[in-house]
Amino acid sequence: MMTLLIIKIGGNVLDNPAALHTFLHDFAALPEPKILVHGGGKIATQIGERLGLSPLYIKGRRVTDEATLELVTMVYGGLINRQLTAQLQALGCNAIGLTGADANILPAIKRPVQEVDYGWVGDLQSDKIDGKRLQLLLNQGLTPVFAPLTHDGAGHLLNTNADTIAATMAVALTADYQVRLLFCFEKKGILKNPDDDASVVPELDQTDYLELQKNAAVSGGILPKLDNAFMAAQNGVTRVVIGHAEDIRVNALEERPTGTLIRKAQ
Amino acid sequence: MMTLLIIKIGGNVLDNPAALHTFLHDFAALPEPKILVHGGGKIATQIGERLGLSPLYIKGRRVTDEATLELVTMVYGGLINRQLTAQLQALGCNAIGLTGADANILPAIKRPVQEVDYGWVGDLQSDKIDGKRLQLLLNQGLTPVFAPLTHDGAGHLLNTNADTIAATMAVALTADYQVRLLFCFEKKGILKNPDDDASVVPELDQTDYLELQKNAAVSGGILPKLDNAFMAAQNGVTRVVIGHAEDIRVNALEERPTGTLIRKAQ
Repeated sequence: MMTLLIIKIGGNVLDNPAALHTFLHDFAALPEPKILVHGGGKIATQIGERLGLSPLYIKGRRVTDEATLELVTMVYGGLINRQLTAQLQALGCNAIGLTGADANILPAIKRPVQEVDYGWVGDLQSDKIDGKRLQLLLNQGLTPVFAPLTHDGAGHLLNTNADTIAATMAVALTADYQVRLLFCFEKKGILKNPDDDASVVPELDQTDYLELQKNAAVSGGILPKLDNAFMAAQNGVTRVVIGHAEDIRVNALEERPTGTLIRKAQ
Repeated sequence: MMTLLIIKIGGNVLDNPAALHTFLHDFAALPEPKILVHGGGKIATQIGERLGLSPLYIKGRRVTDEATLELVTMVYGGLINRQLTAQLQALGCNAIGLTGADANILPAIKRPVQEVDYGWVGDLQSDKIDGKRLQLLLNQGLTPVFAPLTHDGAGHLLNTNADTIAATMAVALTADYQVRLLFCFEKKGILKNPDDDASVVPELDQTDYLELQKNAAVSGGILPKLDNAFMAAQNGVTRVVIGHAEDIRVNALEERPTGTLIRKAQ
């Protein structure tokens, strides 16, 4: 089977024009087929403030109310996604900027209201991801660039975590490709000691992960990323690496990644 | 050759939720293949005001400065385009929301600075429109939905008139389709008497057009629309109609449109 690269970049890269330019240059140079999934970044918050919006939290959880959904539709689905696409075109990468509503590739359901009503947040329906449609686009030499938005099939866009989109799409595409999934951020990988950037854990399995959590070496935003990474590794994704945005070439293609390789349970 | 419908909707429909819903319902029900091109509407101005932007005019011409380009990228390429796509999906139309940068379908050049510097405005390069790519998407059963944005191939998006995109794309696709082009607005058609909505001119050729201009029956925003309409009619587009957004079915499919049929010179 052909290798497919799925690469997730987050806000820290998007917020830094120099880092973004380097990243896009490296991404454009990767062999096809490939897919980019991007997150948000501070720009949504900044534009939200200029629009007079303040992030809404209920019980400590960020809630996507109507105004926030419009904001992320503009910023993620418009400003960031369209600019990334134009910039990749200039680098010779035949990008096509999508949300999950486009060609109905990523159907989702509005997260059911339980303890918290998260508002217009989407939970992907992994068995309904249209891998065949993605394959048709990839076979045309196109590089899909996904904003972190899905839709409910009833006319509403839904705010959806970009790590989850990348991991769930990766699993759905294992039927047709040997999928390699990279989560890029501003560190070289998962660190044994959060204060020492050189303490990258070269490989991590779920036993190690539980150990790291106990020692509080990993916490906060990295936990859902790791959950997504393990989910992908457990479900047929050939290689899952968490690493630096500068290292996508080595992490995607070389035998020995510089980031943290996520191991599935034996 | 197969018939292709290209339908342009403008701001007046986008600004009116009830009219928009009816329009999208009628559009979704049209036979494929078809393409939608949308304009902007008041929402860009409203969001611009909330962001503290005021439209920039030089010598009476609207100029797309950097801030305006970001605004229209968010509003046209994000909010409007993504919402239209999600709404069409809910109506059973397999829409895919695009700008001209996506798959490099609509390459343009930044308008050269002459008397006025229009800023980030794009002039389409009609011979470089990728009709074959559009055909590949249409053959997959997809319905492209275009925001009025193109790109310069050097990483910049460009603000581009939606009527011009619709007309230029229509001409480019005459190689592969019998193209029918509809410009939809809030009137039944071109009016002989601007104060009488019933005075629709059923057919218009360029001689009639010059006559109407002399009598000042047509003026303002309708002039560039008519120029685009005649350009399309002169260059192989099978049917060009200017009509009401409520009448797309009859104007697209029936022998006798309710709008104004644009005739090419004999």
